[in-house]
Amino acid sequence: MTAPEPLKSFSHRLTAAIRLRRNPVVVGLDPRWEQLPEPIIRGQNPADPADRAAAYALFCREVIDVVHSLVPAVKPQAAFFEQLGSAGMQALEMVVRHARRQGLMVIMDGKRNDIGSTAEAYADAYLGQRSAWQADALTVSPYLGLDSLEPFVTVAEERGAGVFVLVKTSNPGGGAFQDLIADGRPLYRHVAEQVERLAQRTTSRDCEGADAIGDINYGAVGAVAGATYPRQLAELRETMPHAWLLVPGYGSQGATARDVAAAFDATGLGAVVNNSRGIIFAHARKEYTEQYGADRWQGAVEAATRAMIEELRAETSVGRL
Amino acid sequence: MTAPEPLKSFSHRLTAAIRLRRNPVVVGLDPRWEQLPEPIIRGQNPADPADRAAAYALFCREVIDVVHSLVPAVKPQAAFFEQLGSAGMQALEMVVRHARRQGLMVIMDGKRNDIGSTAEAYADAYLGQRSAWQADALTVSPYLGLDSLEPFVTVAEERGAGVFVLVKTSNPGGGAFQDLIADGRPLYRHVAEQVERLAQRTTSRDCEGADAIGDINYGAVGAVAGATYPRQLAELRETMPHAWLLVPGYGSQGATARDVAAAFDATGLGAVVNNSRGIIFAHARKEYTEQYGADRWQGAVEAATRAMIEELRAETSVGRL
Repeated sequence: MTAPEPLKSFSHRLTAAIRLRRNPVVVGLDPRWEQLPEPIIRGQNPADPADRAAAYALFCREVIDVVHSLVPAVKPQAAFFEQLGSAGMQALEMVVRHARRQGLMVIMDGKRNDIGSTAEAYADAYLGQRSAWQADALTVSPYLGLDSLEPFVTVAEERGAGVFVLVKTSNPGGGAFQDLIADGRPLYRHVAEQVERLAQRTTSRDCEGADAIGDINYGAVGAVAGATYPRQLAELRETMPHAWLLVPGYGSQGATARDVAAAFDATGLGAVVNNSRGIIFAHARKEYTEQYGADRWQGAVEAATRAMIEELRAETSVGRL
Repeated sequence: MTAPEPLKSFSHRLTAAIRLRRNPVVVGLDPRWEQLPEPIIRGQNPADPADRAAAYALFCREVIDVVHSLVPAVKPQAAFFEQLGSAGMQALEMVVRHARRQGLMVIMDGKRNDIGSTAEAYADAYLGQRSAWQADALTVSPYLGLDSLEPFVTVAEERGAGVFVLVKTSNPGGGAFQDLIADGRPLYRHVAEQVERLAQRTTSRDCEGADAIGDINYGAVGAVAGATYPRQLAELRETMPHAWLLVPGYGSQGATARDVAAAFDATGLGAVVNNSRGIIFAHARKEYTEQYGADRWQGAVEAATRAMIEELRAETSVGRL
C-alpha cells in the first residue's frame, strides 16, 4: 500500500501540461448540431435529444482523440450540452471523462455563480470530489461579488482545481457595464484587482512538485480576458501578475496571434488561448475544405490545431517554451 | 379543429396567476440533502447520485403538491440539481414538468449567461420550444453586457416567457461591484436602467387576453432585487416602473414583509417574493417543529406558506389584490 499521490495545484498541473506540449492552446468543445460534420450526424434524428447528445459525445470524443497529444486542455461549453437537457448533461459527463483519460486538462465553461451556499453547490457540482463532471477548472461570473467567489476558491484549492473569473469578455457589447468608470478606472479593472488578490493568495510556490517544474508564480484563480481587446489584454496582464489568463476570441471571433502576444509572460506562460469553432469545425473553413471536407474532418481539426500552435510559437513568447 | 390558443405574454400570465391566488409568493425549490425531512431520505443511499436525485424529485413533488393551490410560482435552484450531475438534471426536468402540470409558473434560477450564440443556447435550453425544462422564466447575469441579454429577450418574447436580470443581489458582499459608483450612480442602477429599457420594449398592453386581466404595465424582462436592501428596493421600483421584480432574501436571509413593501405597486402587483428554506424546510423551524416535525413536514410547508401570504397581505399592498 502506498500513500495517495499528493494533489498538485492547478497552476502546477497547467504549467506542466503547457510545457509538455510546448503550447498553451485550448480547444473549445462547442458542439452545434447544424455545424457537425455529416458523418457524425448520419442516421441520427435531429428531433431526438438523446440522438443529438450521442452525436455531441461522439464528435467531442473524436476531437479529443485528435488533439490530446497536441494541446494541454479542452474547454467544453456547458450551454450546448444543457440545450439537450439531461441527455446532454450525461454526454458532457462522458466527454469530460474521456478528455481526462486522454491526459487533457478540462476547463468547464459554465460562467456559473450564485450567493453563499448555492455557490458552494456550483463549486461542488463542477470541481468537487463527488462531481459528475470533475473539471480541472470552471469559469465564473463576478457580478454577485467577492463572497460569491470564495466558495469556488475554497473548493478549487482543496481539489487542486482552478477558477477563471470573467473580467473582460470578448463580445462586442461586453463593455456596456465592464467599461463603466468607477473611481477613475473601468469596472473590469476593479474585478481584475480582486482576481489578482485571490490569485496571489492561492499561489503555492512550495507545494509538492514545484521543484520539478520550476518556479511557479501563478495562483489557482485566473481571469477571462478576450483576445478581441488586445490593449486591455496587455493592461490586464500587468494588473494581474499572478493570474492565469484564459483568452477567448482567437480565430472565428477575429483575434490573431499578435493580438494575444501581450497575454504571456516572457517565458511563454501565464495564459491559455481558446479556439472553438476555428478548430472543431475547421473542415468547413475554406483553407481546409478542399483537402479534408466533411469525410476527413478529423484531419482538418489536426491541421487547424497545428496551424494555431505554429502561429502562437512564431508571434509570441510561446516560442520560448 | 380549432386554432391553437394564442400565447399570452409572461406578464399577463404572471399577473393572472398572482390575481388567482391573491398573493405573489414564490416557493424556492432548493433541495439540500442534509436538510431533507427524514421520511424523504429513508432508505436512500447518500453516496449514490441517482438515489439523491430521486429524493430531490420526490421532495420537490410533494412541496409542489402542497403549495400549488396557494401560490403562483415556484423557483427551482439549478445548482442543487447540477450538483448531482445528469441524474440531478433529469430530476429537475421531472420537477419542472410536475409544477407546470399542477398549474404553477416556474422561474428557473440558473443565473446563466454567455456571449452571442452561446447565450442563444442557454435561452433555448431553459425557455425554448424544445427545452427539456420549459421554464416560464430564467434568471440571468448582466456582466457580459447588453448583447448577451438580447438572445434571452428574443426567446422569451417568442415563447411568452420572462427573463429576470440580476440587478441588486441579496448577499452581504453583493455590493463589491454592484455598488461601485460610475457617472454618479451605482453599477446596479446602470443595469436597472437597461432592464427598464428592455421591460418597456417588451410591454404588450394590447396583446391577446389583456382585457380579461386589466391594464398590464409590465414587460417580459424583470430584475432580481434583494429584500435585504429595502432602501435600494424602493429606489429600484422607481427606476424600473415596467419591470417585474423578483425579490429574494425573505425569511431565512432575514428580510420581512415590511422590507419588501416598496417592491409592489399600489395594486399589489409588480413583484414576486421568494422564500426557499423558510418554507421548504419549515419543519425544522422552532415555530413548527413541535406541531409538525419531520414526519408531518408537509403540514409545516403549508403553515409557513400561509403565514408568509398573511404577512404580505397585512403589511403591503398585496392586501389589495
